[in-house]
Amino acid sequence: MARSRKVLSPRAILVPIGSEVVSGNVVDTNSAFLSRELTQLGFEVIQHVAVKDDAVMIIRVLEDALGKADLIITTGGLGPTFDDITKDVLSRISGQPLVFSPTQLKHIQDYFRKRKRKIHKSARYQAYFPRKSRIFDNRFGVAAGIGIEKEGKWLIALPGVPYEMEGLFKTEIVSFLASQFGKTKIVSVMNAKITGMSEVDVVKKLGTRFPPADNNIQCGIYPSPGEVTVRMTFEANNHKKAASLLKFWGNALCSSLGAHLISLSGESLEEVVGKLLVKRRQTLAVAESMTGGLMAKRLTDIPGSSRYVKGGTVVYCDPIKAAILGIDKRTLHRYSAVSPQTAWLMAKSVREKFRSDWAISITGNAGPGSQGRQPVGIVFVGLAGENTKVVRKYYFVGTRERIRWLASQSALDMFRRALLNE
Amino acid sequence: MARSRKVLSPRAILVPIGSEVVSGNVVDTNSAFLSRELTQLGFEVIQHVAVKDDAVMIIRVLEDALGKADLIITTGGLGPTFDDITKDVLSRISGQPLVFSPTQLKHIQDYFRKRKRKIHKSARYQAYFPRKSRIFDNRFGVAAGIGIEKEGKWLIALPGVPYEMEGLFKTEIVSFLASQFGKTKIVSVMNAKITGMSEVDVVKKLGTRFPPADNNIQCGIYPSPGEVTVRMTFEANNHKKAASLLKFWGNALCSSLGAHLISLSGESLEEVVGKLLVKRRQTLAVAESMTGGLMAKRLTDIPGSSRYVKGGTVVYCDPIKAAILGIDKRTLHRYSAVSPQTAWLMAKSVREKFRSDWAISITGNAGPGSQGRQPVGIVFVGLAGENTKVVRKYYFVGTRERIRWLASQSALDMFRRALLNE
Repeated sequence: MARSRKVLSPRAILVPIGSEVVSGNVVDTNSAFLSRELTQLGFEVIQHVAVKDDAVMIIRVLEDALGKADLIITTGGLGPTFDDITKDVLSRISGQPLVFSPTQLKHIQDYFRKRKRKIHKSARYQAYFPRKSRIFDNRFGVAAGIGIEKEGKWLIALPGVPYEMEGLFKTEIVSFLASQFGKTKIVSVMNAKITGMSEVDVVKKLGTRFPPADNNIQCGIYPSPGEVTVRMTFEANNHKKAASLLKFWGNALCSSLGAHLISLSGESLEEVVGKLLVKRRQTLAVAESMTGGLMAKRLTDIPGSSRYVKGGTVVYCDPIKAAILGIDKRTLHRYSAVSPQTAWLMAKSVREKFRSDWAISITGNAGPGSQGRQPVGIVFVGLAGENTKVVRKYYFVGTRERIRWLASQSALDMFRRALLNE
Repeated sequence: MARSRKVLSPRAILVPIGSEVVSGNVVDTNSAFLSRELTQLGFEVIQHVAVKDDAVMIIRVLEDALGKADLIITTGGLGPTFDDITKDVLSRISGQPLVFSPTQLKHIQDYFRKRKRKIHKSARYQAYFPRKSRIFDNRFGVAAGIGIEKEGKWLIALPGVPYEMEGLFKTEIVSFLASQFGKTKIVSVMNAKITGMSEVDVVKKLGTRFPPADNNIQCGIYPSPGEVTVRMTFEANNHKKAASLLKFWGNALCSSLGAHLISLSGESLEEVVGKLLVKRRQTLAVAESMTGGLMAKRLTDIPGSSRYVKGGTVVYCDPIKAAILGIDKRTLHRYSAVSPQTAWLMAKSVREKFRSDWAISITGNAGPGSQGRQPVGIVFVGLAGENTKVVRKYYFVGTRERIRWLASQSALDMFRRALLNE
């Protein structure tokens, strides 16, 4: 029984190591990355256990995890400083001493030489590994990954710096896991992103067929500010079956949710908007007040966005709105900077100045203090196109960060819907 | 012995509940927030255990945690949909049925009425709680917090939406924990942020006295892109002792690290730069190319930044650099957009247009593809002030996101040092 489960869907536990995580000094993003990757590879991730830099506690957690899962991946604690103790722990768990690897020392020396940085004595420690362990070369940094086999299960230690860990995982670990665990099952994942509806509204719209009573389909529904994600994982024995499940549920969500559905593939609003603009060969500029650059930043997070983002202006105080965007001071005085009139003039002006097909403007009050005549949370979004002139008012509740985020979210969604309807 | 440990430093374990976390669909930021808060309240957070929406597995984790810690806080799984099972789990652990709370239903109805939103039938489920449990009112949303006492230990369930969880924690849980666990020990925390040095360099500079061999001082050192954090936690029996430890180590770090030290209090580069500008009553504008708004966004993340940020311009393609910032097309043609010449003209021009005391410009190639004559990772940062004209060249390795972040980080640090030296 246990054996058949293992062959079908090996279980994984992730163990981020480091007091920085447990103390809250660092948010652990590594486990989320690894979970997504491992799910795609057919693993079932059952737990994340973050543990502080305490050898006894780490050993207890790892031994407990080896009892529950087939693969354990630790992140962190492979650096050269006093609080990096993962290698000692691996040495104790495997009962093997740390031994020196000349190949790895050479790799470390090359790494420093290439970057024209001085090499420290402590770097030598990074060339020690538990005897008989499997070493995974790290092209992205100094700390190599380490694999230890224990009773047919694998314990793999990766560095904690996300950039290194992700690179090492993709270049070395994916193929290693395939060689060790095979891939007997097809898992396809749908991440439907939805906007303008609450979690409860989404479930109501999807009706009684959702969630389906099928052991091969896992469902979850997750709210985040201004968005709801419906995640469905389909397990099947062949690609055809997996594809047909994906298609069936994709269609079902499309027809139930209509324009509320942003994407089925986890694509964000800024990605979807970008694709629509590329398709139309159109361009965009933005004029931001309260979001202070967040809107432009989100748009340009997307690789290739220079094809459709011409740029933008952040006008963070009234005289600047007048001086840079040429907005009439009397308008600002009569209606205030947080008004539909100003929002419209900002969009209109930035569209002209940047000679873009579209322009979005955001003006509002993100708090903490109230500003002028408008309370915290009031936002006006303007959209200017060749035949488009829209201003919409929003009211958001929450922290400054939340209000700024929701403002950018609403502006992107308003634009997306305009592009879809045109 | 166990008793004395408990009085001195109660232990806490955090249990984020939800398949969205374990599948990597959502990054768990709640545990980091709670860890920081609990550390300040004198708790020792020993583990975070994320577990999927599986009642049996959650119960096993919670019972194991009750054996190791004095306080367990779960987050998530209190919503109204099918995958929210935390209340059922609490009911089973406490051996108490779920009972209806008319007060909580009224609270939920008021919440929807205020927001002019329709109330769903499923909202009624949110007014059920395990009998004899302690209910914590949630002013930020619908799902109340729940506390269950078990053999002198507390198991507290909070909602998973960070905004609600943080609000509820601050308004209700902090005072509750103080009433239950007291506060017998003073804990002060130093978060020293350092830039322009590697983790190893920092340890070397701090010398042999660091980390101190003192059981009342916990140290950690954590690299993140463009920054290193040294975190020291001081435990003392009185405020005077705690303050003197904090002062001693603050001075030690200041004198060892010099201008590399950004702050001792965890303040970010953008916060430190903001304070320096407020003190001088000076203003700033930015001209961004490859960071696409990230720099302006970081500056305006800070509440009150409208006192010193005048605004900025995102010029995301060459014709726009010419049209908006008036940069000579011949300069762009001769030296390219990614050049010290263009960086300087961007800073100079945006300073003039925004009539600011200072201006920062960033131009470079964030990738993925190489652009013009410069390889991916090359960045020029310009700084213009009344008597300042500086352009510096940087070279970063990594993903688009990382290169953009490091560019903004270096620009902020270059500006900080200029403000300190003037």
